[in-house]
Amino acid sequence: MTANKHALSVTRTEDFAAWYQAVIAEADMAEESGVRGCMVIRPWGYGIWERMQRLLDDAIKATGHENCYFPLFIPLSYFEKEAEHVEGFAKEMAVVTHHRLKSEGGKLVVDPEAKLEEPLVVRPTSETVIGAAFSRWVQSWRDLPVLINQWANVVRWEMRTRMFLRTAEFLWQEGHTAHASEAEAREHTLRMLEVYRRFAEDCVAMPVIAGEKPENERFPGAVATYSIEAMMQDGKALQAGTSHFLGTTFAEAQNIRFQNKEGELELAQTTSWGVSTRMIGGLIMTHGDDDGLRVPPRVAPWQVVIVPMLRDTDEDAAVLDYCRALAAELQGQSALGEPVRALLDARPAKAANKRWAWVKKGAPIIVEVGPRDMAGGNVSVIRRDRLYQDNGKLASTIQPRAEFVAAVGTLLAEIQSGLFTEAKARLDANIRRGVTEFAELERFFETGGQFPGWVEVEWSRPTGAELEAVDQRLKALKLTLRNVPQDAAPATGTCVFIGRPAVERVLVGRSY
Amino acid sequence: MTANKHALSVTRTEDFAAWYQAVIAEADMAEESGVRGCMVIRPWGYGIWERMQRLLDDAIKATGHENCYFPLFIPLSYFEKEAEHVEGFAKEMAVVTHHRLKSEGGKLVVDPEAKLEEPLVVRPTSETVIGAAFSRWVQSWRDLPVLINQWANVVRWEMRTRMFLRTAEFLWQEGHTAHASEAEAREHTLRMLEVYRRFAEDCVAMPVIAGEKPENERFPGAVATYSIEAMMQDGKALQAGTSHFLGTTFAEAQNIRFQNKEGELELAQTTSWGVSTRMIGGLIMTHGDDDGLRVPPRVAPWQVVIVPMLRDTDEDAAVLDYCRALAAELQGQSALGEPVRALLDARPAKAANKRWAWVKKGAPIIVEVGPRDMAGGNVSVIRRDRLYQDNGKLASTIQPRAEFVAAVGTLLAEIQSGLFTEAKARLDANIRRGVTEFAELERFFETGGQFPGWVEVEWSRPTGAELEAVDQRLKALKLTLRNVPQDAAPATGTCVFIGRPAVERVLVGRSY
Repeated sequence: MTANKHALSVTRTEDFAAWYQAVIAEADMAEESGVRGCMVIRPWGYGIWERMQRLLDDAIKATGHENCYFPLFIPLSYFEKEAEHVEGFAKEMAVVTHHRLKSEGGKLVVDPEAKLEEPLVVRPTSETVIGAAFSRWVQSWRDLPVLINQWANVVRWEMRTRMFLRTAEFLWQEGHTAHASEAEAREHTLRMLEVYRRFAEDCVAMPVIAGEKPENERFPGAVATYSIEAMMQDGKALQAGTSHFLGTTFAEAQNIRFQNKEGELELAQTTSWGVSTRMIGGLIMTHGDDDGLRVPPRVAPWQVVIVPMLRDTDEDAAVLDYCRALAAELQGQSALGEPVRALLDARPAKAANKRWAWVKKGAPIIVEVGPRDMAGGNVSVIRRDRLYQDNGKLASTIQPRAEFVAAVGTLLAEIQSGLFTEAKARLDANIRRGVTEFAELERFFETGGQFPGWVEVEWSRPTGAELEAVDQRLKALKLTLRNVPQDAAPATGTCVFIGRPAVERVLVGRSY
Repeated sequence: MTANKHALSVTRTEDFAAWYQAVIAEADMAEESGVRGCMVIRPWGYGIWERMQRLLDDAIKATGHENCYFPLFIPLSYFEKEAEHVEGFAKEMAVVTHHRLKSEGGKLVVDPEAKLEEPLVVRPTSETVIGAAFSRWVQSWRDLPVLINQWANVVRWEMRTRMFLRTAEFLWQEGHTAHASEAEAREHTLRMLEVYRRFAEDCVAMPVIAGEKPENERFPGAVATYSIEAMMQDGKALQAGTSHFLGTTFAEAQNIRFQNKEGELELAQTTSWGVSTRMIGGLIMTHGDDDGLRVPPRVAPWQVVIVPMLRDTDEDAAVLDYCRALAAELQGQSALGEPVRALLDARPAKAANKRWAWVKKGAPIIVEVGPRDMAGGNVSVIRRDRLYQDNGKLASTIQPRAEFVAAVGTLLAEIQSGLFTEAKARLDANIRRGVTEFAELERFFETGGQFPGWVEVEWSRPTGAELEAVDQRLKALKLTLRNVPQDAAPATGTCVFIGRPAVERVLVGRSY
């Protein structure tokens, strides 16, 4: 297999959407379940999620949060308390109306006699039910802050679904906090945004732009919504995590009040923030190539996969022993602060098939061991991030086993940082700055090639109807406002949308 | 506080059910959510679940399983395929019938136009939807065995609920496997039963009896169901985990067929097995005492809690520094194969209140540090498993800090094994053997005191209507058949229920 003939049947430039589906299928990450809008997450996809969970959970706990679990079902009436919130979600919720089935003429039907008095909504997010708990838990300033998180499934009835990016049911963590002061709650909102930025960049090797969403893109009921936005290889933006300052919106709706130090009753200030299995979609579209997925070592279920080259001869047992010893040696090493995750793939299949299966899955390092490697005390090493030589041939290097084992931690760290550097260079190269006219922005997306990237423009931060008009103009071009980057240069010119002095910079792009 | 005045408002002997609820409330483990049958699991309860998950997940992975995730919703028609299975669950399932709400006269209502074509059942268990996936994954003998597991929430519409023991929604793991031969599947069913037995005994310090459930207690659709049964302090049995050999029941219903080595199409043999948050209920009723919970160190979120005795003086800062250093030293130690989990509780509350809060939560070791301890380079150590001296006073021992730190691993291991030994002695003492007449069995439960325990009797393993009759006789006494212990002595006498030669022994008791 050479560089112009890749492991996937479709390349990114041929059809990015089809390529995305091909990666998921060929890497055995997930599949359609037969249940509308719901996917089955297979072991390799779920293994990546488990790694993400472990690393993000550690970071969430390190910032003082504890995990809890709240009910899947939320009574309809809870949503009525917060009008703006329900408006944002009301159109797409799964509703449980009955609690029993019965047999009728040999068929199963819903038992009409088992109708619930109050319908239950399958949680689309848990602000309402967690707010109700907070109102029980918070009495005094001494009870604040409340810092909690839950890992859960949520359901939003989506009409058009795409695996990992938009599914009816998805997995996520949702953090919820209550604070005594607005300043503290706002600071916490930004602290969690920073936790997400670091997680995305340091663990998923996915560079992001952290910033505030414009008013029209706020979470229903939020006073301010922040996001991390990642650029996919097709130039589109993926909102990969959000952090919301909710002010007293939910505290009022759910009656979260505390006695302050002066003995007065005050409303708590709340925040919420979430990251979901969507992050796996981001990983695929950040690191995948035409041979499949490339998983950054920190989130790879297996970092090193050993493929024995068996020939149905007497030597096989010795090769397997050699591989087992190698796996144990690797597991004794550490990389990126954790023990190396090494797997011996001893399944009954051809070595070449196994190699390509792991290439498509994106294991960071594949080690092949045949009788000749064994005899020389060597291993043949394939780096997934540098799969081909300049001549288009597969790059496999023979190394002394001890040398490979001793350096594996360094190599994995190098692969991790190399994937980030590559993605960061692409992000930086594909944000166009200095666009001062709307026509120029329009032209950029018309003539910017197959994958045009984003434009950062100066704007006057319009609100209400003015913002709505901007949004409509952009929507006509299939564009959206992404966020106002935290670390953008100050505005010095004129708003690109409205001829007023600009106050800040905002990113514009196509998005998922 | 002395031995006859305990931290809870109700003792086990006064009212065991009220005591159970009091432990959960006073230890901040969980609370009613306001959503019918669903609880909120609070940080201390969820932290114990996270520890259980981590340990059991490791054991499940060590036996070759990988984690996946399957849809929450199961189309109604999936249940029709397996008649016996649906019969067992049909009466108690949450059904999603609509996918949208709408506003009507200022109120939220279910939008009648958004009715689903096919109702979706919220999974009560996932055999049907996982079986459908297996039928896609399994083509050849080379694809077998399939060994997977998922951690998920499930819903069974229970009329009478009790926190952790029986809730409408609960959390669990469900393992599902497919095998090429019946022998292999049966062996795997027992392997997972053994994983559960070890988990319960080694991690939760909860002794159990592993054995086969009688036919009438089988999982719907199973060929054989095995359980681990634990004895609660009120003598009742808690089924704490089950493992099912499903034969070809689900393979037939879901069409899981493979080409065997001879090229013939064969049905796969499947198994399933689960452990749930019910295990937390078991932990409470195994180890709790009249001062609250006692958590075995292996599943304790915090194993050592440090409570500084602050007096609002200049010395406070030094005491806190001393405590911080102590926490770091403890975290550097290892206990039961893991780093020690030590917490410094520096919240603004009275030291005595914090002490009793941790006593009620059941942290294995509470260390108090006041100025005098600090001056002497000491710590004051309270063991939750030996809270009182013989004279009824609280047992707190002053120890040199370095000595305590060096021995903390040993101490935690001793507490872990001590809790198991105590519970095992109670289990052994409360299984009555040698009962040969039904009247004697009846008398045992009538006169066996407040918490009578179980009876192990010889029986003839009746089936069908005969078994039904036995079951009815027992139910009249509020008794059930628990299981046929794997390691019971062989039967030598006559069936206690039916005057036939006995073939094995079975446990009888009250149960949760």
